[in-house]
Amino acid sequence: MDIKDKKILIVGLGVVGGSYAMALTAAGYKNIYAVNRSQASVDKALKAGVIKGGGTQLEEFASDADIAVIAVYPTGAEECARKLGAVMKKGSLITDVLGIKRYYSEKISAVLPEYIDYVPAHPMAGREKRGLDYASADVLKGANFIITPISRSSSAGIEAVKTLALDMGFGKIRTLTPEEHDRIIAYTSQLPHALAVSLINSDEEDSETGDYIGDSFRDLTRIAEINADLWQELFIGNRENLLAAIDMFTAQLSAIRAAVAENDKESLIKQFEKSSARRHSLIKK
Amino acid sequence: MDIKDKKILIVGLGVVGGSYAMALTAAGYKNIYAVNRSQASVDKALKAGVIKGGGTQLEEFASDADIAVIAVYPTGAEECARKLGAVMKKGSLITDVLGIKRYYSEKISAVLPEYIDYVPAHPMAGREKRGLDYASADVLKGANFIITPISRSSSAGIEAVKTLALDMGFGKIRTLTPEEHDRIIAYTSQLPHALAVSLINSDEEDSETGDYIGDSFRDLTRIAEINADLWQELFIGNRENLLAAIDMFTAQLSAIRAAVAENDKESLIKQFEKSSARRHSLIKK
Repeated sequence: MDIKDKKILIVGLGVVGGSYAMALTAAGYKNIYAVNRSQASVDKALKAGVIKGGGTQLEEFASDADIAVIAVYPTGAEECARKLGAVMKKGSLITDVLGIKRYYSEKISAVLPEYIDYVPAHPMAGREKRGLDYASADVLKGANFIITPISRSSSAGIEAVKTLALDMGFGKIRTLTPEEHDRIIAYTSQLPHALAVSLINSDEEDSETGDYIGDSFRDLTRIAEINADLWQELFIGNRENLLAAIDMFTAQLSAIRAAVAENDKESLIKQFEKSSARRHSLIKK
Repeated sequence: MDIKDKKILIVGLGVVGGSYAMALTAAGYKNIYAVNRSQASVDKALKAGVIKGGGTQLEEFASDADIAVIAVYPTGAEECARKLGAVMKKGSLITDVLGIKRYYSEKISAVLPEYIDYVPAHPMAGREKRGLDYASADVLKGANFIITPISRSSSAGIEAVKTLALDMGFGKIRTLTPEEHDRIIAYTSQLPHALAVSLINSDEEDSETGDYIGDSFRDLTRIAEINADLWQELFIGNRENLLAAIDMFTAQLSAIRAAVAENDKESLIKQFEKSSARRHSLIKK
């Protein structure tokens, strides 16, 4: 059966799950279903024509699904997997969209029967806002997609998830171990969020600085408007890696501080030239 | 005489001086001149029709100028002011574009004869790139413009600089003391640059993280590609304020670090909700 004819169930119609539904339907997938805690989002998605059916009861739609996507919050993932595992058929495939891999992949894998395939993944696209209203197929276009297979992941399952990602319009599809993923993501995603939050929170309460900001401050604080429930889960779920990333960063900031305190122009120039070269090489990627 | 007929001399055809020339000419100013260390940029500006005349010898164009704009690097500002002061006529006006006000305003003021008016200003627009090729009237549109008068600044001079800023398309025109300006700018501009540089420099040298970055990392490191010569001057020229801003930031980042280390979800949520509310209120400004 062509993958576009398979029954794909998206669990959680938030910004990522909603975007998946939109992108898959736009790509010609014909059997996209969704379940969600509230019926309102399901009704919206049905009305928009981006799902074929759906509701609030997972069991109702999961038993004959070929593929399920766990797109709920990290702390709800294990319970979601347990419910899926109890009803999904032999040879079916589960994937997820969680931003932390090792911790949650182990939790999910532990509650799934061995006859269900499981391929963890992390679509590196999202919005700071939450909910279906902010979902869009466009946010996935060209974004990085990381697959983090575990020992139980089958080659066929990995290929199926790659196909889904490519069909949704993701750019680079890459494979990492869950451990590599979590180390990198602490640096490229969680640390930047920690910095943005700290920057905007370090101003005095009644300061008028808001009247004097430029593009640089705007850019650096965009992600300080953050989904608090989700991000505390991501921070704590990747604790060791995030602490290490914060410490690496703090060492660099201390070097700048020391150079400023000591009028050390040469040291500052050296640090700026290093950052310029690194940022410049990033642009080309 | 209408201000648009006055002879205005821009000293330094870099990204800011060049943008001034473009914006003033576009606004109908008829007597814009420029001097620059290299003749090549002057020729380019002449060819583009954004200046009426110019060259490399300041004295040649300054003696009959009504207004001069010091748009050179901070460390060259004092020498530039000394040359202007030696030849400019009584009742003429000097303004500048320096990103640090107290230190340089004092230096400049000290070398100017008292019969020349001086109104320091900071146009909060720029590019990370240097040189005339990156100049554009568009970068000034809607940007903040801060005037930091000192005791010798006349009301007429302040009004003239405001008129220039409005005609160039700046958005909000505000007045601050040099001390207030420097304290605010350490937080809104220099600290973000220090964070961006530290973030990109804190990665391991041979890391492949560049393949896994998302929008947030891109946004936070854009300004890490930095004009090293200029920014070491700005950092060191505003030392006390920048050190204080770094310390305020570090206290906030330490609070996040502690919450992560201690699994303190409530503390993280509180910090994220605070940052979200603050960032949200910024957008409305």
